[in-house]
Amino acid sequence: MKITDAEILDLRFPTSLGRHGSDAMNPDPDYSAAYVILRGDVAGAAEGHGLTFTIGRGNDVVCAAIRALLPRVIGHGLREIFSDMAGFWRHVNGDSQLRWLGPDKGVIHLASAAVINALWDLHAKQSGKPLWRLLVDLTPAELVRCVDFRYLTDALPPEEALDLLQRAAPHKAAREAVLRSDGIQAYTTSAGWLGYSDDEIRRRCRDAVNEGWRHFKIKIGRDLAEDLRRAELVRSEIGEERFLMFDANQVWDVPQAIRWMGELARFNPWWIEEPTSPDDILGHAAIAAAIAPIRVATGEHCANAVMFKQFLQAGALHVCQIDACRVAGVNECLAILLLAAKFGVPVCPHAGGVGLCEHVQHLAAFDAIALAGPREDRVVEFVDHLHEHFVDPVRMREGRYLLPESPGYSTEIRSSSRTAHTHRSP
Amino acid sequence: MKITDAEILDLRFPTSLGRHGSDAMNPDPDYSAAYVILRGDVAGAAEGHGLTFTIGRGNDVVCAAIRALLPRVIGHGLREIFSDMAGFWRHVNGDSQLRWLGPDKGVIHLASAAVINALWDLHAKQSGKPLWRLLVDLTPAELVRCVDFRYLTDALPPEEALDLLQRAAPHKAAREAVLRSDGIQAYTTSAGWLGYSDDEIRRRCRDAVNEGWRHFKIKIGRDLAEDLRRAELVRSEIGEERFLMFDANQVWDVPQAIRWMGELARFNPWWIEEPTSPDDILGHAAIAAAIAPIRVATGEHCANAVMFKQFLQAGALHVCQIDACRVAGVNECLAILLLAAKFGVPVCPHAGGVGLCEHVQHLAAFDAIALAGPREDRVVEFVDHLHEHFVDPVRMREGRYLLPESPGYSTEIRSSSRTAHTHRSP
Repeated sequence: MKITDAEILDLRFPTSLGRHGSDAMNPDPDYSAAYVILRGDVAGAAEGHGLTFTIGRGNDVVCAAIRALLPRVIGHGLREIFSDMAGFWRHVNGDSQLRWLGPDKGVIHLASAAVINALWDLHAKQSGKPLWRLLVDLTPAELVRCVDFRYLTDALPPEEALDLLQRAAPHKAAREAVLRSDGIQAYTTSAGWLGYSDDEIRRRCRDAVNEGWRHFKIKIGRDLAEDLRRAELVRSEIGEERFLMFDANQVWDVPQAIRWMGELARFNPWWIEEPTSPDDILGHAAIAAAIAPIRVATGEHCANAVMFKQFLQAGALHVCQIDACRVAGVNECLAILLLAAKFGVPVCPHAGGVGLCEHVQHLAAFDAIALAGPREDRVVEFVDHLHEHFVDPVRMREGRYLLPESPGYSTEIRSSSRTAHTHRSP
Repeated sequence: MKITDAEILDLRFPTSLGRHGSDAMNPDPDYSAAYVILRGDVAGAAEGHGLTFTIGRGNDVVCAAIRALLPRVIGHGLREIFSDMAGFWRHVNGDSQLRWLGPDKGVIHLASAAVINALWDLHAKQSGKPLWRLLVDLTPAELVRCVDFRYLTDALPPEEALDLLQRAAPHKAAREAVLRSDGIQAYTTSAGWLGYSDDEIRRRCRDAVNEGWRHFKIKIGRDLAEDLRRAELVRSEIGEERFLMFDANQVWDVPQAIRWMGELARFNPWWIEEPTSPDDILGHAAIAAAIAPIRVATGEHCANAVMFKQFLQAGALHVCQIDACRVAGVNECLAILLLAAKFGVPVCPHAGGVGLCEHVQHLAAFDAIALAGPREDRVVEFVDHLHEHFVDPVRMREGRYLLPESPGYSTEIRSSSRTAHTHRSP
């Protein structure tokens, strides 16, 4: 099967109307997807669906970048692509002229995520397997051949990555059986958006406790007195035995983060997320040293594997929050999972947005089965928005993701939703 | 004067035909500019011209990003903008939805550079001064108010920036007099592109020596034996008393950089530029430690001031190569100049491309007069391409930039060149 055709869609959902997703940096996001459908030359065959999540304005710019990347993909055969996937990944991301626009970051990298993920969705559908299953069934050597190790070898040579995977391999079947019955542990962000009233927060906390949730994240960083009050409120609802996490969404400078967290420490946070600029590795390391034992989490805005590598090398990150669409798709996520496993740091993927939960459940399942193995401190973000638009939406039970079963990467948006939410430029 | 109108142009020059600009990462660049013209509501008044340099494909994506940023600028008055320029800079770069596409990196940041620089060009033209002169005439307090210190205060609080500028202020007139007579020291990259034949390199070296050049940079990194041969050839032409710099354009991993530079050290390089990923602060620090006393240079692909801050904090960079169009314009360049001055590192701007020489001569002049002062190790890149397309092109004498005299930022491309090189999408 050869990729012969692509369709690009600018999809937007008016989430800002309900103040869903509001935080200290992003008061009114309109969750959006720069969406690509790849089609092949086999009549009646599956389509590959990939998307990048944005929060509204500029979604069209990412669509333009997807368009610029398509000549790297159209005309190539699926078998050829997956026979040397690291090489093909480099081919897509290494166009010398387009690379200038990054390299490996920002709009062009977001666009690459959509394209690369669409290829994996197509490959998984063609294989008749959900993506996590496809990855789990690859041999350690095949997995290593999916990763472009350029710029990573000082921290993780390919031989060491192979060794990590080989050590996990004998445990795959047993771990999978556990995940099939128990699902993957999740945490909820749905109670703690900044735009919600106290009553709404209380109501959402109680609902979540009743549903069996044990991990709660709230947004902070706009006003210290207000943050202290809301942390108190949430703590009183969820009790001391459940876990509370804070998310500052990048609003602090380094000294400011240390000062505010000094005040907020008394609520015993399980982590502080994005305390400062997502680019500031050394800043995160300074914050981590100053506020220990509170753990530092980041990653949803971390541009690429080279940045994650350094966060890990510097001891600047204790919770690794990969985003399935900010780095360039499954291959780069694999690289980051391997780096995190090497450094012994849990991967707790960023989710929410449009379809991020659908994506990351596959990556977390792979990590738990075939790489890092079971960890009590692995929790996958869950936000209860927009799942109804997906053909194969996540299924939750008592605060846990159930393993997806349909072939593909669960990234396909329903045709009716695509039609209803296609954005027309004004 | 209020900004009422903007024109965006996708300009491309077919430089790949002559192998100009060829290096180990970029074999065939077509130098391009995503170009914006800002116009105001005053009849007959000047226009602001700003551009971002790219190397071809994807220039349209940057144009789309400029379009997305325009609503942040249109309708604002020039006096209002420059009365709180740091605030306005944050306003342009801080649109919460567009910020998601970076933040502060890649396509959206490149686009911001064009817009911010167009505003400074307009402001300088309205003031009747070349940009360097406009900046030199600002008081230290006014300059500090041009910089957004978010994420920088742990390395450089505003008070310390003010102090740096105040200490330089008494020397401004004397330093300017020296620059007026002597110009600004430059180095040439024109002899050492990878795509040139040996004969062409020899000829270009001899010409440059005869013109008075003392600093020569060559591209390396594709083949070690070939690099050694070409380094020998260039050294034999320029002699031991002139300076030779190497540029690897990001092709090495960290261990590989250390290994290759072990071999190339015998040619006594004055610096090695971009030995590995431009995001790898810790990698550059490791390379710097291993190959000392050879200095490490980087910056043309450094995404923003937060990254430069860390390169400086980590001792990973001895030569700071700002790019006038990759970071978000004059304001962010000022932030980086201040950081470099604080850490005592010379700023040797990246130039070449389309109009980068025209831009950075202003920044280097400001730095030499009003901030870091005279330094023998400050050399500004010079490449002799495409200057004929500019209304106010650089003027060189014996390997030195003469101070620009026309009002503005020298960023305006001639109308006839704009017409001739406007790219039509296929």
